[in-house]
Amino acid sequence: MQINHDRIRRAQELMAQHGMIGIMIMNYDDYRYFFGDIRSQPRAIIPAVGPPIFIGFSAEEPELRQELGNEPVKVFSHVGEQISNVRETFRSLFGGPPPGLKSPPSGKPRVGMQMWFHTPAFLVDLFRKVNPQVELISSDPVMDELRMVKDPGEIELMRKAQSIAALGMDRAKHLLRPGVTGHEIATEVLYTMMKAGAEGTSTPIHINAGIRSCWIHGKVDKTPIKAGDLVVIDLTPQFEGYCANLARTFVLGHSDEVRTRLLDTYHEMREATRRMLRPETTVAELDAIGEEICVRRRLGEFHLKGISHGIGLRFEETPAPTIIPAHRRTRLREHMTVTVGHTILAIPGIGGVRFEDVYLVTQDGGEVLYDYPMDSQVD
Amino acid sequence: MQINHDRIRRAQELMAQHGMIGIMIMNYDDYRYFFGDIRSQPRAIIPAVGPPIFIGFSAEEPELRQELGNEPVKVFSHVGEQISNVRETFRSLFGGPPPGLKSPPSGKPRVGMQMWFHTPAFLVDLFRKVNPQVELISSDPVMDELRMVKDPGEIELMRKAQSIAALGMDRAKHLLRPGVTGHEIATEVLYTMMKAGAEGTSTPIHINAGIRSCWIHGKVDKTPIKAGDLVVIDLTPQFEGYCANLARTFVLGHSDEVRTRLLDTYHEMREATRRMLRPETTVAELDAIGEEICVRRRLGEFHLKGISHGIGLRFEETPAPTIIPAHRRTRLREHMTVTVGHTILAIPGIGGVRFEDVYLVTQDGGEVLYDYPMDSQVD
Repeated sequence: MQINHDRIRRAQELMAQHGMIGIMIMNYDDYRYFFGDIRSQPRAIIPAVGPPIFIGFSAEEPELRQELGNEPVKVFSHVGEQISNVRETFRSLFGGPPPGLKSPPSGKPRVGMQMWFHTPAFLVDLFRKVNPQVELISSDPVMDELRMVKDPGEIELMRKAQSIAALGMDRAKHLLRPGVTGHEIATEVLYTMMKAGAEGTSTPIHINAGIRSCWIHGKVDKTPIKAGDLVVIDLTPQFEGYCANLARTFVLGHSDEVRTRLLDTYHEMREATRRMLRPETTVAELDAIGEEICVRRRLGEFHLKGISHGIGLRFEETPAPTIIPAHRRTRLREHMTVTVGHTILAIPGIGGVRFEDVYLVTQDGGEVLYDYPMDSQVD
Repeated sequence: MQINHDRIRRAQELMAQHGMIGIMIMNYDDYRYFFGDIRSQPRAIIPAVGPPIFIGFSAEEPELRQELGNEPVKVFSHVGEQISNVRETFRSLFGGPPPGLKSPPSGKPRVGMQMWFHTPAFLVDLFRKVNPQVELISSDPVMDELRMVKDPGEIELMRKAQSIAALGMDRAKHLLRPGVTGHEIATEVLYTMMKAGAEGTSTPIHINAGIRSCWIHGKVDKTPIKAGDLVVIDLTPQFEGYCANLARTFVLGHSDEVRTRLLDTYHEMREATRRMLRPETTVAELDAIGEEICVRRRLGEFHLKGISHGIGLRFEETPAPTIIPAHRRTRLREHMTVTVGHTILAIPGIGGVRFEDVYLVTQDGGEVLYDYPMDSQVD
């Protein structure tokens, strides 16, 4: 555990600007970002003023205090009825008058919280119910500002994660043949990636073959893969919490005209998009490039919008246009890490293709974090 | 894919009783329950009256129609702007007058949705924002009534999942020795369980050693395990979507008086609780048994409440008292599947113990789904 005081200080400045009296942390990624440690279901508060507060089970307190050393933090611990104790903690923290910050329209003090995939709806409802004196809002205006642009240490960890995905893809390619199942490949690929240091994957491994290569989301199934199938493989190992994303499409045996056209189109789209990964570009602009290419190749109706998304400690970070449509207008910044290849180009009844990598946004366009081969042919 | 018409019919009867005009399905477990197939991020609606409606990407439609055969279902598909198309679909479905069902207090037609860990807060907020004409409520009153009691086919799958967890635990025991890391054990255990047919695990594998055995939630870390450590291992493989839960605590080398007392106390509590897994018992009553034992052994302050939870297609199902406190009053029913051993008995600075298994509730008390050894000593 290593508290990052600089990040906390910047978060507090941003909270003041956005009229938040604190950020409630309930997710591993925000916790990892500020405190350098990964915990499932962490509970901590960063108030707009003062040191961070940790909420933990009483039996965890000695370890937490030992790890924190002389850090000026508070630790609230409890046994028994967790929820009521946590509620009382919140009441004592948020119940008083706001500490002189900009007053929000509701007149209530605002508390920020992450509202993405890993924040369950019932926890948000529960928080609102037991803390009626505060207005709970998304912490994105603070956390995006901090987390979108990666520092050199983060970029190094993301390169490492991507290199682990590459080892997994090598293994998958080696195993791909008619008769093997997606489940068999996923079993070996996950083992390879964990042996190389991955904690696991941020999304289930996707191995979508044949007609299922059209799917937007993946599934590991136990049906044998057939000769002629398009096979989309999407690997998302995590290393020290940082997420990789590597997708490739393979053709088992002979490709035909339509499959070759899908593959060639995706490559053209991918490379054109990569060149545009520069500061100030929006995802809408990236999609416009892809659309023009797909239309020209008579595949315009078969490609979804949202070719790129942010990635870091979370599998999808801002901009995530397929989750939050307003993110189509988010402008890229130097040293953001984004994927290209999030969306499928798929013809109903035939199959789909995707090639996804992670890039660093630079003044000269996207720099791939790990340069993995693009070949599709598997004999 | 195999639509379970009986389950849909019973769901529709319950919807009528609870004044819901439909249930929106966004989670793999409800989807698996009704349609016999596992998909990530599924989207389907079961209206109170009429056939189920599937919402999918246009390129997935041929496969869906092929799998559904002559089933009387509707499929809505779309390209491009997913959210706006889904919103229009909802509007056309829910915008009209409610089909003569019991009118809720708000006067708005009610739509049920799962609100557990896998339903992200932002999706619920988005649904409410784009569907202001309906009142979104938890689908638990319908789904719990259906899913709490398992049928013989479900129980068979849960036994299989639990037997896979047992293979994983054997592997973990074999690898446990001073110097090995939790990450190394987790890597091999996951591989073993997937080779045996698991799709993956429903929660990350927990291997908490030494002072970290006190943690409520787990972590796979890369710190070597030391002689004398208590090691809590919690395995949650899934088979065909059904969840296992097997936790054991090991002592590396010599146990001492306090560690032995923790282990013995947990075993007494576990066995006394198991005998009470009969219809009509509440989790509060189970906790009272455990508390009496812990107090008598002078460990009363060190045990959390919530020793049992429901389990099935979701890792935690009703009753889940550590998530939803009101579930402490839920009464067990015959052929529910529940765990015993969810909560840790932990002394701060020393360590914690847990032994968790899945049981079938019967008139004669809990019948363990898979009888795994309880020994703790590892030399």
